[in-house]
Amino acid sequence: MDLTEHACLLRERVRERAPLVHCITNFVAMDTAANAVLAIGGSPAMMHAREEVAEFAAIADALTINIGTLSPDWVISMKIAVEAATRAGKPWVFDPVGVGATKLRRQSATELLALKPTVVRGNASEIMVLAGLTGADQKGVDSTRDASEAEASARQLAKALGCVVVVTGVLDIATDGTRMLRIANGHPLMPRVTALGCALTAITGAFLAVGDEPLLSAAVATALFGLAGEIAAQEARGPGSLRVGLMDALHNLDGAVIRTGLDLS
Amino acid sequence: MDLTEHACLLRERVRERAPLVHCITNFVAMDTAANAVLAIGGSPAMMHAREEVAEFAAIADALTINIGTLSPDWVISMKIAVEAATRAGKPWVFDPVGVGATKLRRQSATELLALKPTVVRGNASEIMVLAGLTGADQKGVDSTRDASEAEASARQLAKALGCVVVVTGVLDIATDGTRMLRIANGHPLMPRVTALGCALTAITGAFLAVGDEPLLSAAVATALFGLAGEIAAQEARGPGSLRVGLMDALHNLDGAVIRTGLDLS
Amino acid sequence: MDLTEHACLLRERVRERAPLVHCITNFVAMDTAANAVLAIGGSPAMMHAREEVAEFAAIADALTINIGTLSPDWVISMKIAVEAATRAGKPWVFDPVGVGATKLRRQSATELLALKPTVVRGNASEIMVLAGLTGADQKGVDSTRDASEAEASARQLAKALGCVVVVTGVLDIATDGTRMLRIANGHPLMPRVTALGCALTAITGAFLAVGDEPLLSAAVATALFGLAGEIAAQEARGPGSLRVGLMDALHNLDGAVIRTGLDLS
Repeated sequence: MDLTEHACLLRERVRERAPLVHCITNFVAMDTAANAVLAIGGSPAMMHAREEVAEFAAIADALTINIGTLSPDWVISMKIAVEAATRAGKPWVFDPVGVGATKLRRQSATELLALKPTVVRGNASEIMVLAGLTGADQKGVDSTRDASEAEASARQLAKALGCVVVVTGVLDIATDGTRMLRIANGHPLMPRVTALGCALTAITGAFLAVGDEPLLSAAVATALFGLAGEIAAQEARGPGSLRVGLMDALHNLDGAVIRTGLDLS
Repeated sequence: MDLTEHACLLRERVRERAPLVHCITNFVAMDTAANAVLAIGGSPAMMHAREEVAEFAAIADALTINIGTLSPDWVISMKIAVEAATRAGKPWVFDPVGVGATKLRRQSATELLALKPTVVRGNASEIMVLAGLTGADQKGVDSTRDASEAEASARQLAKALGCVVVVTGVLDIATDGTRMLRIANGHPLMPRVTALGCALTAITGAFLAVGDEPLLSAAVATALFGLAGEIAAQEARGPGSLRVGLMDALHNLDGAVIRTGLDLS
Repeated sequence: MDLTEHACLLRERVRERAPLVHCITNFVAMDTAANAVLAIGGSPAMMHAREEVAEFAAIADALTINIGTLSPDWVISMKIAVEAATRAGKPWVFDPVGVGATKLRRQSATELLALKPTVVRGNASEIMVLAGLTGADQKGVDSTRDASEAEASARQLAKALGCVVVVTGVLDIATDGTRMLRIANGHPLMPRVTALGCALTAITGAFLAVGDEPLLSAAVATALFGLAGEIAAQEARGPGSLRVGLMDALHNLDGAVIRTGLDLS
């Protein structure tokens, strides 16, 4: 099956199966991430208490972890949830928001990466920091490097961790360390809306839950999210209406739209 | 006065009196719940610190408690706030989000129910779990049961607690254990927007604050919220624009709209 | 340079420099504040953990502190962040949400004011409470006083603290204790959307970061935010669409729009 037909298939499965996605995410993103998962047909649940995350992660279909507004007690919950999801054989996604900014973030990310995420999704700078933390890439944090350097870091990180790495930005890529998929969907206005990367992380959980190959699920989620952004941008007058239109477009994504607009190779 | 005229009266009172609604709700719902209360004319305040909730609950006109993203320390604050509201003679609403999902939720809900809410609002599954927890209904958690079973659970729960129970879903009902009101307003796209149930819980607080009969206040709040959703759905292109239109419609609800569209009996 | 040209200059600087604004704000406002800062061209970051706020406040271009959903542990983080920002010579804004409502708020505000904010922004009632707390105005909390009393409190507070005070409401003012600027931009529907005051606080941080005079930066931020609200209100059908249009309008604010609509004197 080609990538476009695979995207159509996974999109329909999300709608039919409504996978339960357990999200431990930041306070800024909770609304947008929950709405994005609902819009595309999944079933989001935000829960963070250490007393309940293990119980819930085991029954959810996927787990997503995002350190955007982290604190040490939340990191404890994240690790408990990840361990429960892993024991139950459920995929999980790690979103290392702002990992280069503080020691707490680098340390928390190091601990979470050691628990072997199914997918890591971040921007170029974040992925290069992670590659440095794991020893896969010692070059450090500089976010001004060009896309080819991020690509190399992503490949190294994926190989080192045995996971899929998605880098989003001007160009999006997804790699398992060997294969490299490229996504040209998306729109320049999208970064002017907060938490869209975090929302994509949550949606990626939904696609992992219904797919067989993490690389394809992650790449398809990224491409469809970008495509919905493009559709929304056609009538948007700014970031406020882009956000509204994005949720509408996620809901309305169907085979015809995907076959016309998907740019994944 | 018939139900429609009663709805018009309460709606105007909310606009005129701008009741102060103290909400201890989940992180996903805070924005939407605050905006919904503001849109319909109330005055929301989100506060959760145990050091201040008693002081504030006593001056607010109503309190609403929602366990969506609970943690044990928040449950302590919830109980302190409820006790203060009760001492001050203020109504309070309990929203048992996801109560069937984990032990922490069942235990927290049991403790909160013991403090005798004025109104409990949940979906069919949640209300059946609560009925089971209180011994009013021993059948358990199965959310696949049909509406008539939820109705029986609601009636039993209301009788057992001496409160009003609202069940929302495909059909909405409100009961005090004896009377049963039915609400046919609402739209199938509404569950595709996160936290609308939580927002209704907050709005229910505003209507309790201005009404004399909790059953009528809760039923009217539910019906008006559903009606606003119907109005929004007429021009919505998906869940993003539905949410925007819902806030506009709540703001614009007036006697003419209510008399044309209310379906409460 | 006259005030309008100064506003155009600062607005362009925000777009060009994309100042990094560290926000420790309330759970209700995080989404709206982040989106408002992004819409106008800044770069928001919400972080609150005491283990990282000092590190981050030192690298950010401005810090904003908002006590809307405070708890004692967050107040500790706020103070750590403020001390780090001050050491690094960065401006910071204090937003005393609901300061009159509880002892915890009054005490927290007193502690934060002692750390000498660059700008304090609140409604008339909040500013009068602060003036009372600092001894600048002993009259207390009554929010029913008229605008001229708030103006006197603002001036006294600004003098006592050596800071800029912005009062927003029906009329907006900004003062450093000597000069008094008046802003007539804004729209009556704006208070029907939650957290717009909090969003203005965040935006004020962005303008402080790019300006030389805190009084002008704060007044320009307030005026531009009000102007964006006016533009949004022209096509809004209620508070839902107002919020969407406000984000669009913030993004699209340019010299032509500012020269036509700014009402700052």
